[in-house]
Amino acid sequence: MEKEPGRRERRKLEARERLLAAARQVLAESGEANLRIGDLTEMADIGFGTFYSHFESKEALVEAVLVEVMASAAGAIGSRALEFPDPAETASFAYRRFIRFAADEPELAAVLTKLDAADDLFETSLLPYARKTLERGISSGRFDIVDIDLALLSVSAAAFAAIKGVLAGRIGPDTGAAGAEMMLRAFGLQHADAREIAHRPMPALEGRLARA
Amino acid sequence: MEKEPGRRERRKLEARERLLAAARQVLAESGEANLRIGDLTEMADIGFGTFYSHFESKEALVEAVLVEVMASAAGAIGSRALEFPDPAETASFAYRRFIRFAADEPELAAVLTKLDAADDLFETSLLPYARKTLERGISSGRFDIVDIDLALLSVSAAAFAAIKGVLAGRIGPDTGAAGAEMMLRAFGLQHADAREIAHRPMPALEGRLARA
Repeated sequence: MEKEPGRRERRKLEARERLLAAARQVLAESGEANLRIGDLTEMADIGFGTFYSHFESKEALVEAVLVEVMASAAGAIGSRALEFPDPAETASFAYRRFIRFAADEPELAAVLTKLDAADDLFETSLLPYARKTLERGISSGRFDIVDIDLALLSVSAAAFAAIKGVLAGRIGPDTGAAGAEMMLRAFGLQHADAREIAHRPMPALEGRLARA
Repeated sequence: MEKEPGRRERRKLEARERLLAAARQVLAESGEANLRIGDLTEMADIGFGTFYSHFESKEALVEAVLVEVMASAAGAIGSRALEFPDPAETASFAYRRFIRFAADEPELAAVLTKLDAADDLFETSLLPYARKTLERGISSGRFDIVDIDLALLSVSAAAFAAIKGVLAGRIGPDTGAAGAEMMLRAFGLQHADAREIAHRPMPALEGRLARA
């Protein structure tokens, strides 16, 4: 009686993980329009009818995938960014890397930006890293920021809008450096300094974000 | 045969306007939860059943109200802002005035920010004024902006996020000046200059925005 529920629960979690992985793959490769429950249950090797014991709807599955993708992208970018000794470079790298996400993973990014409250999800995912970076820059005197909460929500919203702008073709995928330059100025850096840092070569991230 | 449709059409438009005015009043005073079609048709002096010949749903009416409110707020703020000879003061005034909108009209602002694609509506409404201001600042050498399209969408998204932040109590209604200061730095102003302009007393707008 003790062991059975544990094993059943584990099996169920494994099946759920396979469904998530299948959906992530289809979303990244073909987009939301091509996501069919029958394909996913087949890929995940579970019965069609079992789907609804894992997710309430296809939309709920898509949302779960995106929460995972965002959290893992924020984690990968954020923890890599925090390795830079200069918080200005941390902020610049993170901003540019998120903009490049739109170019690297257009299908996933498109689904993400169409999600209800996607901007909030984006902000929540990157907030811990962003706040740490701003606090580090303020306490070292590198940044001169008037209101940290306002700066955090402004930069998060601006970065998210830039991702949407790249997807919509309103700005080019290479505007990341221009955006980082603008952000660093807003954080108090002198123009020449902001420009130089924002245009540094970007170190690679290990692995692809969507697979992280 | 010629005149009848013209008069009928005019009557219908007048009834539609009365419905919009009634909804605007209820939204501003009591919020979306208290919006009932029966009250609105009574306030507009039309039969309950006629409502659906004007709007597909209550949601469609709310959206129409908000499009009007945004367009008129953007018009009032934008045209007033363009009177400043210095584009930096234009930008600062417009930014701060929009943030104050959240404090002045919390019910309307709350409905607005919950609307689907509200950020796009906000951006579309203010874009003509914002673009003119940035172009003016760039051509006079007042602004040093790397990418005008990126600057426009970043600032619009940041301002909209700040409005939501005020409504959610994450930032105070007085952070408008801090945000304007950050924006002016991003546009290339020196720190002391950005600070001074962002903290100037704000001239009044004629009339209340929601009634405009």
